[in-house]
Amino acid sequence: MNFSNRILGMDFSPIRKLTPYAKEAQNNGIKVYHLNIGQPDVKTPDTFFQGVTNYNEKIVKYSDSQGIDVLIESFIQSLSDSNIYFDKNELMITHGGSEAIQFAIMATCDPGDEVLCPEPFYSNYSSFAKISGARIVPVQTKIENDFHLPDKSEIEEKITDRTKCILISNPCNPTGTVYSYDELKMLGDIAMKHDLFIISDEVYRQFIFDNIPYNSCMHLTNILDRVILIDSISKHYSACGARIGLVASKNKDLMHQILKLCQSRLCVSTIEQFAASNLINTMNSYITEVKMEYKKRRDVMYNKLSNIPGIICSKPKGAFYMLAKLPIDDSDKFAKWLLTDFSYNKETLMFAPGSGFYATPGLGKNEARFSYCTNIEDIENSMIILEKALESYNK
Amino acid sequence: MNFSNRILGMDFSPIRKLTPYAKEAQNNGIKVYHLNIGQPDVKTPDTFFQGVTNYNEKIVKYSDSQGIDVLIESFIQSLSDSNIYFDKNELMITHGGSEAIQFAIMATCDPGDEVLCPEPFYSNYSSFAKISGARIVPVQTKIENDFHLPDKSEIEEKITDRTKCILISNPCNPTGTVYSYDELKMLGDIAMKHDLFIISDEVYRQFIFDNIPYNSCMHLTNILDRVILIDSISKHYSACGARIGLVASKNKDLMHQILKLCQSRLCVSTIEQFAASNLINTMNSYITEVKMEYKKRRDVMYNKLSNIPGIICSKPKGAFYMLAKLPIDDSDKFAKWLLTDFSYNKETLMFAPGSGFYATPGLGKNEARFSYCTNIEDIENSMIILEKALESYNK
Repeated sequence: MNFSNRILGMDFSPIRKLTPYAKEAQNNGIKVYHLNIGQPDVKTPDTFFQGVTNYNEKIVKYSDSQGIDVLIESFIQSLSDSNIYFDKNELMITHGGSEAIQFAIMATCDPGDEVLCPEPFYSNYSSFAKISGARIVPVQTKIENDFHLPDKSEIEEKITDRTKCILISNPCNPTGTVYSYDELKMLGDIAMKHDLFIISDEVYRQFIFDNIPYNSCMHLTNILDRVILIDSISKHYSACGARIGLVASKNKDLMHQILKLCQSRLCVSTIEQFAASNLINTMNSYITEVKMEYKKRRDVMYNKLSNIPGIICSKPKGAFYMLAKLPIDDSDKFAKWLLTDFSYNKETLMFAPGSGFYATPGLGKNEARFSYCTNIEDIENSMIILEKALESYNK
Repeated sequence: MNFSNRILGMDFSPIRKLTPYAKEAQNNGIKVYHLNIGQPDVKTPDTFFQGVTNYNEKIVKYSDSQGIDVLIESFIQSLSDSNIYFDKNELMITHGGSEAIQFAIMATCDPGDEVLCPEPFYSNYSSFAKISGARIVPVQTKIENDFHLPDKSEIEEKITDRTKCILISNPCNPTGTVYSYDELKMLGDIAMKHDLFIISDEVYRQFIFDNIPYNSCMHLTNILDRVILIDSISKHYSACGARIGLVASKNKDLMHQILKLCQSRLCVSTIEQFAASNLINTMNSYITEVKMEYKKRRDVMYNKLSNIPGIICSKPKGAFYMLAKLPIDDSDKFAKWLLTDFSYNKETLMFAPGSGFYATPGLGKNEARFSYCTNIEDIENSMIILEKALESYNK
């Protein structure tokens, strides 16, 4: 009665694996600040809940495997505001950005194939690859360089005849790096030269700060048949639990193939699709205000964090995460210790240990990802606790 | 720019692939009776919609990867009515029964592994296997034997060292066959002897007619660590679009591994989970009445269908499908012809061609699956149209 090597080779979520310790701490009367998870405390727009209320069917029926028309159209319209243009049959609704990435990898990779990915990367990328029998080949990026891409030659030397695609998140989770047009152009050139797809996860595209322009792989007009765009309402509209995402490509043949995957799981939750389709009626000010709020939070966290002795961090330009080097040996141990052995005024914090964002063994061991999608007071308190904890831990 | 062999090797849904022709027929003013799809016309219980309305959070947050507690508890309670007993950590909520089966196959099979499955079988089983790099090995069942299982020796001779699990649906989609306790016991013995898991898809378990007892693989007490139960609210509560299912096993180690798959896609739609958890408050009469209604429909369809000259059909004992042999050569062609070349009083019908439910090439070519989850008037009209169509087609 053996389990598959596939599942044995997968990892538990480094972002969620400390949850049992956090629950125990809470049971012991300790307040835990959750900086480990990208769950915003921002309210979901009323338009979403109106969309739920407006659903007045008597039967919760299967919807079309591709997604419901009004939702597809609303995504097309909202993407066009960013100069990204899709036709109806170039876009499919998925159970969150997660399923979208999973489908993109499954459509391009067979067992043994390789997915090139700047490292550190969102930890579930590794799960999506392993589920498909594929493997992430990391391209190292460094905190000293604000996690921007290395030279073209450094990327190309990782390419083998098993490489099928390049997977990026832009803005990047976990680093907050926003790639420049030139960086994307370089990836586009590599994709063309080596006959690869680019899976571009842009679920944080609305959250870019400091007047940095948003460049999408969908702006690389000469390689659009190679680009697979991943988007989602989860972060933009603080609706992570709705599980509404999309996979899209100008490559119609590819999308036609992906329809098989969509059909195999029949459809995405119908009511959530209706609700999400009403987000198009959200006032523009919603995203603007949320973005301003995240910028404030980033500034607070960056200022506090970079002033803690021994911490090195890069100032994120987008998304709502910060990856920092801590003055410790092993952030997995430290993260657990925070929950099991430490509290300050009956409070402690939870972060995502860095090693979970690296495929290269040993890398990220002294790093930590902090999410700043929680409120400023919590961020400030967390940073005080972190400073006290490091003092105590390093004594 | 190649697509994966995985996706190229997959098929489009045989149940949904005729949809474009149906749309065209409708555009030409033809009414199409959809007997192809298992979408009930029965109302979803009010309790579900009350559950939606009761959701009063301001943020649609991620839920726990395993599922929300109240939903897990409501499934545990409802399964206990069928003498199936689970603890909380033996059960995980999934995006419909589809994801549950996908997870069960992924957890037990590596690329190249084999899934033993009575044939004909629900066509997406093949997709789930192919997505995982595994392959369905069919065990043939016959209409003359009401699609019951063959002898033990016939099943065992299909087992190789790559066989990892047996996958059944009980009651069976597409045949309506309900397995006896002795048949399940035989499968249990085979599983034990050959060290296999049994994935038991029981999403139609509430719909068994003619006072036939419901036997679950979960009643095979000597092999419970080998049984993976699949359930869903889709059919029982006519809530297919909610995408709420579950995967469950007394094998805690297996469920712990499956948690990795749950974590990789973060969570199931939160609002739909809340809504589904309120189904526990549905009056018992709901399922009883729906079951009586389906029995009536089955009787009507069976009587009409078996009286059409040249048609052979087996009387289903459960679920809401009927698989029949038609007096034609190729039901794929005939199904398409019905939509493109035929109408009777400006009406026609759609069924699922039989070949889509077989892995063995050539089998099922003259068969058709008719769903009787639509109302009696539509069933009666459809059967009249079918008889006229066959007359015209065979002229």
